[in-house]
Amino acid sequence: MRKTFITMCFCLIGSLTFAQELRSPDSSFSLQFSVNDKGTPTYQLKYKGKSVIKTSKMGLELKDSISFQEGFAIADTKTSTFDETWKPVWGEVSQIRNHYNELAVTLDQKSTQRTIIIRFRLFNDGLGFRYEFPEQKNLNYFIIKEEKTQFALAGDHKTFWLPGDYDTQEYSTVTSDLSEIRGKMKAAVTPNSSQTTFSDTGVQTPLMMKSKDGLYINIHEAALIDYSCLSLELDDKNFILESVLTPDAIGNKGYMQAPTKTPWRTIIVSDKAAGILESKLVLNLNEPTKFKDTSWIKPVKYIGVWWEMITGKSNWAYSDLSSVQLGVTDFSKVTPSGKHAANTAHVKEYIDFASKHGFDAVLVEGWNVGWEDWFGKTKDYVFDFVTPYPDFDVKELHNYAKSKGVKMMMHHETSSSVRNYERHLDTAYKFMVENGYNSVKSGYVGNMIPRGEHHYGQWMNNHYLYAIEKAADYKIMVNAHEAVRPTGMSRTYPNLIGNESARGTEYEAFGGNNADHTTILPFTRLIGGPMDYTPGIFETKISAYNPENNSFVHSTLARQLALYVTMYSPLQMAGDLPETYNKFLDAFQFIKDVAVDWDDTKILEAEPGDYITIARKAKGTENWFIGSSCDENGRVSKINFNYLDPAKKYIATIYSDAKDAHYETNPQAYQIRKGLVTSKTKLSQYCAPGGGYAISVMEVKDSAVLKGLKAIK
Amino acid sequence: MRKTFITMCFCLIGSLTFAQELRSPDSSFSLQFSVNDKGTPTYQLKYKGKSVIKTSKMGLELKDSISFQEGFAIADTKTSTFDETWKPVWGEVSQIRNHYNELAVTLDQKSTQRTIIIRFRLFNDGLGFRYEFPEQKNLNYFIIKEEKTQFALAGDHKTFWLPGDYDTQEYSTVTSDLSEIRGKMKAAVTPNSSQTTFSDTGVQTPLMMKSKDGLYINIHEAALIDYSCLSLELDDKNFILESVLTPDAIGNKGYMQAPTKTPWRTIIVSDKAAGILESKLVLNLNEPTKFKDTSWIKPVKYIGVWWEMITGKSNWAYSDLSSVQLGVTDFSKVTPSGKHAANTAHVKEYIDFASKHGFDAVLVEGWNVGWEDWFGKTKDYVFDFVTPYPDFDVKELHNYAKSKGVKMMMHHETSSSVRNYERHLDTAYKFMVENGYNSVKSGYVGNMIPRGEHHYGQWMNNHYLYAIEKAADYKIMVNAHEAVRPTGMSRTYPNLIGNESARGTEYEAFGGNNADHTTILPFTRLIGGPMDYTPGIFETKISAYNPENNSFVHSTLARQLALYVTMYSPLQMAGDLPETYNKFLDAFQFIKDVAVDWDDTKILEAEPGDYITIARKAKGTENWFIGSSCDENGRVSKINFNYLDPAKKYIATIYSDAKDAHYETNPQAYQIRKGLVTSKTKLSQYCAPGGGYAISVMEVKDSAVLKGLKAIK
Repeated sequence: MRKTFITMCFCLIGSLTFAQELRSPDSSFSLQFSVNDKGTPTYQLKYKGKSVIKTSKMGLELKDSISFQEGFAIADTKTSTFDETWKPVWGEVSQIRNHYNELAVTLDQKSTQRTIIIRFRLFNDGLGFRYEFPEQKNLNYFIIKEEKTQFALAGDHKTFWLPGDYDTQEYSTVTSDLSEIRGKMKAAVTPNSSQTTFSDTGVQTPLMMKSKDGLYINIHEAALIDYSCLSLELDDKNFILESVLTPDAIGNKGYMQAPTKTPWRTIIVSDKAAGILESKLVLNLNEPTKFKDTSWIKPVKYIGVWWEMITGKSNWAYSDLSSVQLGVTDFSKVTPSGKHAANTAHVKEYIDFASKHGFDAVLVEGWNVGWEDWFGKTKDYVFDFVTPYPDFDVKELHNYAKSKGVKMMMHHETSSSVRNYERHLDTAYKFMVENGYNSVKSGYVGNMIPRGEHHYGQWMNNHYLYAIEKAADYKIMVNAHEAVRPTGMSRTYPNLIGNESARGTEYEAFGGNNADHTTILPFTRLIGGPMDYTPGIFETKISAYNPENNSFVHSTLARQLALYVTMYSPLQMAGDLPETYNKFLDAFQFIKDVAVDWDDTKILEAEPGDYITIARKAKGTENWFIGSSCDENGRVSKINFNYLDPAKKYIATIYSDAKDAHYETNPQAYQIRKGLVTSKTKLSQYCAPGGGYAISVMEVKDSAVLKGLKAIK
Repeated sequence: MRKTFITMCFCLIGSLTFAQELRSPDSSFSLQFSVNDKGTPTYQLKYKGKSVIKTSKMGLELKDSISFQEGFAIADTKTSTFDETWKPVWGEVSQIRNHYNELAVTLDQKSTQRTIIIRFRLFNDGLGFRYEFPEQKNLNYFIIKEEKTQFALAGDHKTFWLPGDYDTQEYSTVTSDLSEIRGKMKAAVTPNSSQTTFSDTGVQTPLMMKSKDGLYINIHEAALIDYSCLSLELDDKNFILESVLTPDAIGNKGYMQAPTKTPWRTIIVSDKAAGILESKLVLNLNEPTKFKDTSWIKPVKYIGVWWEMITGKSNWAYSDLSSVQLGVTDFSKVTPSGKHAANTAHVKEYIDFASKHGFDAVLVEGWNVGWEDWFGKTKDYVFDFVTPYPDFDVKELHNYAKSKGVKMMMHHETSSSVRNYERHLDTAYKFMVENGYNSVKSGYVGNMIPRGEHHYGQWMNNHYLYAIEKAADYKIMVNAHEAVRPTGMSRTYPNLIGNESARGTEYEAFGGNNADHTTILPFTRLIGGPMDYTPGIFETKISAYNPENNSFVHSTLARQLALYVTMYSPLQMAGDLPETYNKFLDAFQFIKDVAVDWDDTKILEAEPGDYITIARKAKGTENWFIGSSCDENGRVSKINFNYLDPAKKYIATIYSDAKDAHYETNPQAYQIRKGLVTSKTKLSQYCAPGGGYAISVMEVKDSAVLKGLKAIK
């Protein structure tokens, strides 16, 4: 069906180009689409008159078929506008506006008589576009050899990047200019139990950049469904990024059946760093949820039998056997090592602590048989997800937790043996329901089985979604570690309440994270969805738990509190051990008080790699929580409180670094002060190197509490 | 534990070898095992003084580890004898003697401090041996790069071989000397929807050979569990075969965790061709079944809505759509092509026919949505195994079949999308149970998904067994097509009642099988287990069903009857259409009468590639059935009846080729004669080219029936 379309004819010597233009609702962005003289689709993007993306080619290379790269002509264009506000089940804000202008270009490829559609949505915070393949006579099944989407950048931007990899995101972010990536790649690729780099100039998304003239630019994707994960290859002569998809075991990058579509490629742009953090573009490009009932999905604050194993203080495994066989090894006859943390009595201690301090759940890792030889053996039948070790009494702990008003949180480490996981999935989920578990942390550590597949290929992306969808049938919430990084799919599948899929707190025990790590992650990893960062480590020297481990957490204690605000997640762990929290109960109070679900969010200060300060309003309350994190330099944070209700008074409790605090030499030096704040208050707050602060701002309802309190200055 | 062992010391210049000898219970075989001067295990096998296997190396090549090939010394040997008789749940005979002498050699590899055991079992009909890897400190997980088991043959034997292939067995057997394999390989590799040859001199097992001095030799494997399928590579200068395992997607050939073992490598030898067919060695090397209740496992005689689609007369698919999406395409709105065979009314016709003629079940292919684009598209979500097409009424047909005393037989074509199959397996099996199906024909047509895996690798062998074991939980019998060829595992898993896993009757419609095909298969394919050969094609010209198909069945009608006896299977199909059988009800009577389970079997005549004549005693009766199949030359078969009870009289009905019958020009010329036989009867029976005969021999209980009958001559 061909509608009348608006064209702009440019007659150049020997060629004819028709350019389509689209503007964002506020006109700050302008997109130009055209087909060049080879019939290749191209686009360019400007923001407030500045070039963000120069003329960039689009298309896909197919296997055993003429590619979707040349020979196109515009057959039709349709423009439309969309403006709706929707409420997320959980989030940083209680409602989100989805407002864009859309251009859908229908392209006919004459030589093959095939048609594709490229759909552009231009928001006030950026661009999303995708390829669509309508149902048609001459296109049915096709195999993608490589996607050929370019992002021709306007300069040698400062970039916050991870080495491109088909199997891990657990690298420390490198901050450098684009031109320096090649030289820094080798050192950036630190060891991992499963890794597959693909290029000396390959990088992952979300990719965060800052141009020399102050534009903040973020490239990612949205709605990664039935497709291979996007990485980028940099042509570092011309500063052109090009899409690289994750291959399967035989080198193919996508199996498609028309009618179908790719995920959205997203480009968020702002002249303020805060604009990147505020953007809801990736969520907006995902489909609304079809879940009829979401009442069973609730944000979770939890503790867990976990950090003591990460540090090496205790073990996941029950015994010291080097090898076990599920269904064969009789664990009732096996000698326990005495270092198995997940035993009934010890778990009860965690339940007691959680109950006492108002936590929703207790995660327990190492509860099930198989941990003796789960790692690095490419073991197929590695776990069954239902058989506990002899010292973990499932029913007893179910009843005990229930009596204490606390939920047990399940752990499904798959060891990347995914056929095995899928074989047990229904049984495992049923087991959870029968035993009072409604949330699961899943993991995909190690090289993938089926062998040859990668963590981020179409095959595995299909699996991750399969596990999430099946979990929803059982009203189970999922937090998937080592899975593909999120792309806003929590809008469609709100039971996906978390992923790790980046270098998290555990790496503080594996050598440490950079002091500025958490000032970068919200601009990169968090753009697609929340991260189960599991902060709250108060004992930063790992040797305090395990004398053989000299790692230390590159953070002050005060900054650990801030992370509950700056690292948005509906799933928040107080990662450390109860015995440590018991030594710092005054600081721990912040973790107890901080909310995990929000009505509103204000980005007060932000510069990727340097600092982030955020204020959030706790859902259904008038209370606010503020967090600030900075890099290895330390700084003075200057914030205001003008988002508070001018008619109200609030008590602020400020947890901050002491003057002599330092993430390396004096991390536990913190101070707590309480005082009165109003919407007029302004605060200058010192942050130590690798430090920060956290503030709870509680509405005053009874003015009696104001007695003796002074105004915060 | 070291016991005293008997050694024979041979002191050679600079080396020391200890040879172990083992004899079969009747001493006809002698095995010699020794470790050569490199510390490589070797064995040799003699039969009645003739060399069958010359000195052959043994071992395994490992990945990233010192191989199990050299540096061994004998640490211990144990010999034992075993003699037991067991009853199979179904079979060619009612009881089987398992009688062997065993030698278990423990080998220490000094440089690695690792131990392996090679276990030999020598029967009166051949040898089986396997590698075992005991639980031990220095061996835990290891990866096999290649197994290095040699079979050094004593001459340039006549061989009946299939091109070695990791994905299909559907080639026509080639008969040639070993030295001719290389030259004939190219022509032998005919096209298949999934094929992966590996060598110009690679061949499959079971491999059948006949030495120039009249020894029949068969090489295969038994108990293929958690391992990769065995093929063989021929060194055609020295006539040494060496093991080749099927690789996975990344080229590895086996993932092992000690304690574990390989399958048995089997060598059956006889100076009579019949000795090969009579051997129960492969079954005997499999473990007894652990199934407590096998009463639900019953041999099946069935017909099916199948051949009419194979010939092209009708379709599996409901419509002519080129592409469908399960869960999306609304079949109630799709226009049917009018050629969909699996519709309720038509299936009822088959049920009526089955009921009228005493068949147990009706197979229906094409009943479920997805057939429009199931083939050759590498489609992941291709079938769901539970959603019928709009014209196939599951409940109606369940009730109708039940009322007629007939079972419905399920069809699960997986299209080799195996993750998809496993995801649906429980639901699919439950659906079967709920709707009265107790047997399923499964299929694995096309290249494997996960991509890069092969049909016969360890990965897929694990799947086939998973499907069989899960089926047993639901009391379902399995007949798996395109799966790995059987290796006697029906002893352990008696619900595996059939496989195709070779070139079957369907190929008669895809160009034809050689006229001698069925005189070879019992010596090759059937050595590991029964084949669902689906014979009984009476209308041999395919053009009678589909004018566009010029193929013809390379067999006379009479020989088609013989196949119910010569091609042993507990699962037997009358493959042709009811409307055709209705034209030949006199010949069809044999198919109605023939049993599918046996108390005894006699091989009357046999020569691989030339002829086979077998007599079998129907279980629990005094009746016998005889079948004879010959090659393109035709012949006169000469048999006796001395296995009949000398005190009884029998009526024999002989279905044979007419004098002018010919598989190509006059296939339907048959004659039927009835007469009296006793244990003294001798018969000379003409067989046409590509022909044969079938005889039912029914005990006479009421001598009144003898009136007017003459003795068969």
